[in-house]
Amino acid sequence: MTHPFDEALRLEPDSDGSWIGATHPAYANMVGPFGGITAALMLQAVLRHPGRLGDPVALTVNYAGPIADGAFRIQATPMRTNRATQHWTMLLTQGEQVATTATAVFGLRRDTWSTTEATMPAAPAPESLARYPGAGVAAWTERYDMRFARGPMPLAADAPEQPDSISELWLRDDPPRALDFPALAALCDVFFPRIMVRRPRRVPAGTVSLGIGFHVDAAGLAAQGDRALFGRACGSRFGLGYHDQTGHLWGVGGTLLASTHQIVYFKE
Amino acid sequence: MTHPFDEALRLEPDSDGSWIGATHPAYANMVGPFGGITAALMLQAVLRHPGRLGDPVALTVNYAGPIADGAFRIQATPMRTNRATQHWTMLLTQGEQVATTATAVFGLRRDTWSTTEATMPAAPAPESLARYPGAGVAAWTERYDMRFARGPMPLAADAPEQPDSISELWLRDDPPRALDFPALAALCDVFFPRIMVRRPRRVPAGTVSLGIGFHVDAAGLAAQGDRALFGRACGSRFGLGYHDQTGHLWGVGGTLLASTHQIVYFKE
Repeated sequence: MTHPFDEALRLEPDSDGSWIGATHPAYANMVGPFGGITAALMLQAVLRHPGRLGDPVALTVNYAGPIADGAFRIQATPMRTNRATQHWTMLLTQGEQVATTATAVFGLRRDTWSTTEATMPAAPAPESLARYPGAGVAAWTERYDMRFARGPMPLAADAPEQPDSISELWLRDDPPRALDFPALAALCDVFFPRIMVRRPRRVPAGTVSLGIGFHVDAAGLAAQGDRALFGRACGSRFGLGYHDQTGHLWGVGGTLLASTHQIVYFKE
Repeated sequence: MTHPFDEALRLEPDSDGSWIGATHPAYANMVGPFGGITAALMLQAVLRHPGRLGDPVALTVNYAGPIADGAFRIQATPMRTNRATQHWTMLLTQGEQVATTATAVFGLRRDTWSTTEATMPAAPAPESLARYPGAGVAAWTERYDMRFARGPMPLAADAPEQPDSISELWLRDDPPRALDFPALAALCDVFFPRIMVRRPRRVPAGTVSLGIGFHVDAAGLAAQGDRALFGRACGSRFGLGYHDQTGHLWGVGGTLLASTHQIVYFKE
């Protein structure tokens, strides 16, 4: 049986070198698809490109407008190829309308001096925490097993304002799936908009720009397999219609797999 | 007398809607220009575009290859214009060669609920701290008055490895210049690569991707004027040839003006 993530990630090559995909109901958000699956698709369009060099180092995805249910086209263009790095721009369109723009930096990885300064917070084992009830929020939330150690998005309509927007949680694909770069990109967007944690009112909110720094190579992904990741997200400033969000995702042994940041639109 | 930043930011419109600029010796780095001036130029190409809507919300700049001394062309293209947001892609070329790619999200700002979670660290007044000696590192470092409260980049060749990569400093254009969006973008790149703070060896290093989230509108810039900003930067993961860096820039009254993140290439 094909994992729903792999179904959603399916891209058919078109004769002009672009890719044709389609939205998948398993990763639907309240309006359009889950931003994480769109990020995964933008990355996948590069990963499957015959001219691709190396592994993802940095990815930026700008959500320019809603993606309607149905087919879309992704064009991935290598803008410059160096000896050890490659720069890409990607574009997701529906008809003539641009829905998503993106850029990526790929690179040949090599061993260098290494250290982690953002260490994984202490947390109870995932088995000791209750699974977050995704049902009713949006279809995509059921595709992730989320277990909050701190700062779940309050689901009650009358939940009080929180003292901060910090969330810490275990997270994992459901069904479990061995980690790869598209899955890691999608996991970077699993954190709910910080405004909904900090000030639990159902107001329109959505990511306008998502950035990801990848800290692993293929060996690091293989070491993770399908085990749960630990994530932490917080906002630093809310105001003038937007807020930011910084996130970290750790894997087995406290390995930092990715750092991520977002700018999120919100109303009120 | 024109400020060197304004000289460096000069763009002449070409007949095809693109802009022609040139590198400026006052903002030279060891190889090519200071990344911050390039980020400012990419943003300026949008700010001066006749079709531009609103103010900068998010900017991503990918440094694809070196910019040679001399002229360059910047093309800024509005990819999608919505009611309150606008999405851009930008491209800096020299001849047929792509040197820099970028994207930006602009938006009409409006008053909303606001709060700051990333509060400014306590620090001595800038007047009580010594100015960092920029001379000899690169020309651009003399265009900024930097006063470190913590974690300066060690200049001695035999400096020991540091316990972390955290820097905290006052920073300001030299000569002083009233803050605007291009200047704020440039200031986000003033932090030296974290690898050179953490492990002070002169190894090849350079930003490959810079992201900025803007948290102010025109009124916020005006409130800042030409006074010093306070910056904090740290890395979370170093390894496999790259490290990340997260930064915050506060203005007068502890207002968070921008949050920024980088992916930096390093050797060894």
